[in-house]
Amino acid sequence: MNFQYPNGHLPLYKEKQKRQPKTLTPSFANRGMRFEESINASNEYYLNHQLAVIHKKPTPVQIVKVDYPKRSAAVIKEAYFREASTTDYNGVYQGYYLDFEAKETKNKTSFPFKNFHLHQIEHMKNCLKQNGICFVLLWFSTLERCFFVDSQMIIYHWEKQETGKKSLSLKKIEEIGIEIKLGIAPRVPYLKAVDSHIKQKGAQQENE
Amino acid sequence: MNFQYPNGHLPLYKEKQKRQPKTLTPSFANRGMRFEESINASNEYYLNHQLAVIHKKPTPVQIVKVDYPKRSAAVIKEAYFREASTTDYNGVYQGYYLDFEAKETKNKTSFPFKNFHLHQIEHMKNCLKQNGICFVLLWFSTLERCFFVDSQMIIYHWEKQETGKKSLSLKKIEEIGIEIKLGIAPRVPYLKAVDSHIKQKGAQQENE
Repeated sequence: MNFQYPNGHLPLYKEKQKRQPKTLTPSFANRGMRFEESINASNEYYLNHQLAVIHKKPTPVQIVKVDYPKRSAAVIKEAYFREASTTDYNGVYQGYYLDFEAKETKNKTSFPFKNFHLHQIEHMKNCLKQNGICFVLLWFSTLERCFFVDSQMIIYHWEKQETGKKSLSLKKIEEIGIEIKLGIAPRVPYLKAVDSHIKQKGAQQENE
Repeated sequence: MNFQYPNGHLPLYKEKQKRQPKTLTPSFANRGMRFEESINASNEYYLNHQLAVIHKKPTPVQIVKVDYPKRSAAVIKEAYFREASTTDYNGVYQGYYLDFEAKETKNKTSFPFKNFHLHQIEHMKNCLKQNGICFVLLWFSTLERCFFVDSQMIIYHWEKQETGKKSLSLKKIEEIGIEIKLGIAPRVPYLKAVDSHIKQKGAQQENE
């Protein structure tokens, strides 16, 4: 519940749009997809095609009062939002543990660090120590550009915050991230970026 | 929210009790720990000692009405329990994806299959296909015995249900499972069983 979603659409990536028959595009573009919904739809695609099992974690809620008018239809009458102790998404892909957050900004030149919370940074650190594959998916809604960024990079720059910068520049993100071109199905084909990341990491380890 | 927890305690395993100084045991035994709470405490122990990052997923809730008296204290006024589409616990351990359910029964001779739900079986199948490590922790509360059982075994026997049996006998569980002796910290040291399971699997693959 930490995200602020603009009401804007997540339009089809233009390159892809050209290749698709014209009748398909309007229905997609008009649906007003938000970034998170697009990721959820991508996860569903990956699950249905047995490519990965990734789920969004439910919003943590502290339940205080429940009415049981019938056993089958309990109604929660009082509850409060709790702060999550993890990131939003995790699951398994070809034996790898994946763990990530999806974040978006309307900014055009940088990604504000205020989008990241201490508990998320801590969780990413813990997962990295256990050799999980941890990353963030950054969506520049105005620019319609999506990036995969290794959590190690996010943590590194987040911790340098105190020395001045309050955001990660788009230029830096272009340099350290992997751009994801949106598609039809899956809409956010982030597993391609995960593959590149695994390859890069493997190559790095060989050089060490 | 599918579990039925007895009000009974989760007492210290007797063998262990003998080895501990007397002053330690009453406080633990009197705390009235339930199985799920003991697993949560074990996960906390594993997290704090940087041994694994395993979290229980929040209960999925469909939020219908929220009051915002102040921005900082939103109150959920109407919400409903949703059925989970996954198991309760997952996370990462030394690069391995772990995924499990914790179940308990008061029965003394068998574990009823009604404790397992179709969506859990489906989720376990999906995770196994992605080479995740999937299992269930079974707690016989009356016998005070805890078992790790590979999900592959659970699925195999669950699917044989139609041919007659409505439960998995304790004898079978002793044969196919790994018994977990309860401890102080962590209370349910299930990672030991995970280690044995990984070793067994590795040996099996070498023989194939």
